[in-house]
Amino acid sequence: MAKRDLVTLLTDFGTRDPYVAAMKGVLLQACPRARIIDIGHEVPAQDVLTASFLLAQAAPWFPPETLHVAVVDPGVGTERAILAARMGGQIFLCPDNGLLTLPAKVMPLEQLVMVENPTYLPREPHSLTFQGRDVFAPLAGQILNGADLDRLGRMPRTYKILDLREPECTTDGISGEIIYVDRFGNLISNISRGMIQKDPDLMDGVVECAARTVGHMKGTYADAPAGTPLALINSMDLLEVAVSMGRACDEFGVREGAQVLLRHRRRLLES
Amino acid sequence: MAKRDLVTLLTDFGTRDPYVAAMKGVLLQACPRARIIDIGHEVPAQDVLTASFLLAQAAPWFPPETLHVAVVDPGVGTERAILAARMGGQIFLCPDNGLLTLPAKVMPLEQLVMVENPTYLPREPHSLTFQGRDVFAPLAGQILNGADLDRLGRMPRTYKILDLREPECTTDGISGEIIYVDRFGNLISNISRGMIQKDPDLMDGVVECAARTVGHMKGTYADAPAGTPLALINSMDLLEVAVSMGRACDEFGVREGAQVLLRHRRRLLES
Amino acid sequence: MAKRDLVTLLTDFGTRDPYVAAMKGVLLQACPRARIIDIGHEVPAQDVLTASFLLAQAAPWFPPETLHVAVVDPGVGTERAILAARMGGQIFLCPDNGLLTLPAKVMPLEQLVMVENPTYLPREPHSLTFQGRDVFAPLAGQILNGADLDRLGRMPRTYKILDLREPECTTDGISGEIIYVDRFGNLISNISRGMIQKDPDLMDGVVECAARTVGHMKGTYADAPAGTPLALINSMDLLEVAVSMGRACDEFGVREGAQVLLRHRRRLLES
Repeated sequence: MAKRDLVTLLTDFGTRDPYVAAMKGVLLQACPRARIIDIGHEVPAQDVLTASFLLAQAAPWFPPETLHVAVVDPGVGTERAILAARMGGQIFLCPDNGLLTLPAKVMPLEQLVMVENPTYLPREPHSLTFQGRDVFAPLAGQILNGADLDRLGRMPRTYKILDLREPECTTDGISGEIIYVDRFGNLISNISRGMIQKDPDLMDGVVECAARTVGHMKGTYADAPAGTPLALINSMDLLEVAVSMGRACDEFGVREGAQVLLRHRRRLLES
Repeated sequence: MAKRDLVTLLTDFGTRDPYVAAMKGVLLQACPRARIIDIGHEVPAQDVLTASFLLAQAAPWFPPETLHVAVVDPGVGTERAILAARMGGQIFLCPDNGLLTLPAKVMPLEQLVMVENPTYLPREPHSLTFQGRDVFAPLAGQILNGADLDRLGRMPRTYKILDLREPECTTDGISGEIIYVDRFGNLISNISRGMIQKDPDLMDGVVECAARTVGHMKGTYADAPAGTPLALINSMDLLEVAVSMGRACDEFGVREGAQVLLRHRRRLLES
Repeated sequence: MAKRDLVTLLTDFGTRDPYVAAMKGVLLQACPRARIIDIGHEVPAQDVLTASFLLAQAAPWFPPETLHVAVVDPGVGTERAILAARMGGQIFLCPDNGLLTLPAKVMPLEQLVMVENPTYLPREPHSLTFQGRDVFAPLAGQILNGADLDRLGRMPRTYKILDLREPECTTDGISGEIIYVDRFGNLISNISRGMIQKDPDLMDGVVECAARTVGHMKGTYADAPAGTPLALINSMDLLEVAVSMGRACDEFGVREGAQVLLRHRRRLLES
């Protein structure tokens, strides 16, 4: 019964409606000690993939035993299960709809349960349309109060994983795609530092985005003249295409899904 | 002198200006223990009705004795009074401009005072244009520090209530209107579960919105095929028109004020 | 070694990406007691001047010894220094790029160091592109944990100050410009109450904005009929042009940089 107090929230509820506040109120009723940090509430409506990406990028930076509650839930009120997980020393609570896909790639999955123990599930009648407030918040309060994950339910036989396209290694190099465009207009790809480091020829490769040559990888944004494109391995250890002091998404006219290529330099010269 | 530490803020100050932060700084100076939760700051400028709706939907979910400070204040710097109230075990502090109208419909009004005791009002010269920072925040700090409401002033002879159109019961059923459109584009009406339950014929009635038939009420969003409209009683116990995985406000092309009708099914068949 | 727990964050990271949450996670790892307040994260990308304005308007209202971490950092990953400062009893941590310019105008600079002591700088390899998370957050944690500023480094010989146009006193009065447009569309100028009070003839002067006469200064917004322009000295002690219940930036069709003039009334009459 380890007591916790730190809890993060990630939802697609936005910040202009009363939903996030109601959820926080219920959480504070269930656990008055709770210290609530917002990961964010501006996930596009029902966009489980974006939420999964944000969770994977934010959660690992929190103290061990932080509880991360993610409610982006197109199947609210249906039979979809509720998952509680321990990954990389962090605790997660979310609907079983693929939200754990990307966190599970960056944090080792240590424990996974399907929440079904009626002792911990809300007993009173509750809405079928706002389980963030009526189910997840009270459950989160009980986890903060020390409920062990193995008391909440049993390991599920299977759980939902999103079907993602992985980067491909070709004879030319690595071919991937843009998976996230951030506030600065930076184009973040699914090509990781780990993939690149496996092949020394790739470290000084040439990046192409949307069929346009960006060039070699730089160290930071200011390594390129203001207004010019550059590529680098970003703070998420992912290959990113940016424009120094500008917006790459506008410069390249692309969004999520656009192709990114990292070409072997040597093989390029040899051909 | 019950000490409190939980305080929520609801304003129309937005989040890109320095106003909310300045208000929080003053609150923390007045009460260093304060734990501040944002209900929201994106209320349209001077929109007292929307703020009243948000307050009514969020406040009841907080722990008893939470202090809710709402500053949407078109009359800032004028003679309009300041109210402190206790409703449903929650404490409220706001200008006397109608903000309590909708909270008072969902929570029993237990105590109401007009804040006028000079002991509690800020003495130093303060701005006439930012009383959130200069008047409400210091007052809130004193309430958190244990100031009893009956020390702040006396019960006002009258206080401002917004003039709202109520749903009408007709021979056809209930006729109401959309009062709030949320981030998901859901159309939330002023027809409550309580009104509907008074007449068993209404429970399986047919919903119309903007002169278009939506159909019977469902349990949750996923009960309709993706992209199709549905009606349900939402988590606020209000009749809502939605589109499964879509945006009802775009599908119906309506906003606040649009008409919603719940028609008696049986009488419909009989006619 | 004074322990602190209150820390504010001001960035241009926005609230839809994982950046602010990651920074908060690292801060809470470094100092689990930390109580984090957002000044704001919607500063336009790389806009050091706007961030400096927000910092100057928000920071002075916080309790003494609050740590303000401002990360708007176009030079991230370059040789630009990191500053820690004490001004008006508040602590500041930010890149050396001009962010302290406007705070230093409203708070006395009491101590300034260039952070260079390797004991306090992160040792592990860290990203060159996200120093908010990898450098500023751990440093902030150490300052909260009691690290004295004079242990972090030495006073720099010089530090970056933004080059701002100051209002000019002319024979007609004072000529200044709009430096900030807030959420309400209010036009906030760089003409301060202090400048105006130096000349009694200015107190009942006539305000012009964008070559249009606004009139004498009022006390508060409601002193003008709804929809009409007015000028006043606002809660920041700056001359502001507003529209009662409206948006001055739309009414006047101007933004930052537009000219504002406060004309001597008496000399106006005499001429």
